[in-house]
Amino acid sequence: MGTDAPLLLAAVSLLSALQMGFLARRVGLSRIAHKVLPPSVTGPPEFERTFRAHQNCVECYPVFLVTLWSCGLFFSEVTAAVAGLVYIIARQIYANGYVKSTKKRLPGFYLTMAVFVTLSLLGLVGILHKILHKYFKIHL
Amino acid sequence: MGTDAPLLLAAVSLLSALQMGFLARRVGLSRIAHKVLPPSVTGPPEFERTFRAHQNCVECYPVFLVTLWSCGLFFSEVTAAVAGLVYIIARQIYANGYVKSTKKRLPGFYLTMAVFVTLSLLGLVGILHKILHKYFKIHL
Amino acid sequence: MGTDAPLLLAAVSLLSALQMGFLARRVGLSRIAHKVLPPSVTGPPEFERTFRAHQNCVECYPVFLVTLWSCGLFFSEVTAAVAGLVYIIARQIYANGYVKSTKKRLPGFYLTMAVFVTLSLLGLVGILHKILHKYFKIHL
Repeated sequence: MGTDAPLLLAAVSLLSALQMGFLARRVGLSRIAHKVLPPSVTGPPEFERTFRAHQNCVECYPVFLVTLWSCGLFFSEVTAAVAGLVYIIARQIYANGYVKSTKKRLPGFYLTMAVFVTLSLLGLVGILHKILHKYFKIHL
Repeated sequence: MGTDAPLLLAAVSLLSALQMGFLARRVGLSRIAHKVLPPSVTGPPEFERTFRAHQNCVECYPVFLVTLWSCGLFFSEVTAAVAGLVYIIARQIYANGYVKSTKKRLPGFYLTMAVFVTLSLLGLVGILHKILHKYFKIHL
Repeated sequence: MGTDAPLLLAAVSLLSALQMGFLARRVGLSRIAHKVLPPSVTGPPEFERTFRAHQNCVECYPVFLVTLWSCGLFFSEVTAAVAGLVYIIARQIYANGYVKSTKKRLPGFYLTMAVFVTLSLLGLVGILHKILHKYFKIHL
């Protein structure tokens, strides 16, 4: 199994998981810096923005993984892996901007959306193409 | 790999990912409608219900994916895919109801639980069956 | 596909998904015990700790799945499965401790971090090893 598993998708997935760990750690450090003790999630604006930046990435992450693998398995592994790297960069721009101000989260947010549209559209095309081929014998 | 990957599970996964995007967007629109600026997550009751409906789906989503694929790979792909479609419908009933009132989230909630019980039980049966076969040479 | 799919990784994934369901149910029971009606997520300290314990597991869960499968597919399935079982135990210690007091979440938290470091490092080694082999013809 290991040798057949899509290497680039796995590499991008693991890289993005490490990024999630990095963003979670930043929330922990922000808790210490602003003296916000768990289980509280409210505090100074900078803490709340750091916290919400991470939460937004938590909300997006499983959606990212599904669209990454859909595009990678049914359309093109290289295209998906490149889009996945752009996603990781987009999330970093988003989180770094959000920590500074609510408005500065927007460029990274829009880039994230662009990656989601790309990955899900290409994944949809790939899956529909295979469904037509397998269940309806239609070869486009 | 792409041609061997389970097509129906992938299709249902991608569809559910698009639904997650739809529910996230609804929170964004509710922010605008109720003038709740990020990073705040508190506001009028309708906004808070819309927000919590999405959060609950975020909490459920990775659990759904794991039970969907467990059932689909080790019990039956068609059964899992059908249950997965019911899950997507259940989550939509849940979220649409929750936006209206806290009580109206319940029908969709119970249907979601029914799908989780089905998918995880069948996945468990399938996996245990294969473990007995592979590691204990027991053929049921 | 079903017969080739990594059985131990699937078993650990399904077990951890059931644990997530168990922890979500505990939040529901805590809502009833402390009369915290949805969509509210604030209330007595014990409820808030129970809620945050589950939320933290929600944040960690997709990261766990990615590191589990990276290690299991590219390094060693048995090692990953054992580490995965330790993760499930660690999260239970964490959540049980957190319900009692904020400080008692720490032993389970540190054990969780140890599993994450192990799984992601071994996954990284396995993936880099295969990338060197496949794309650079370097056989270590």
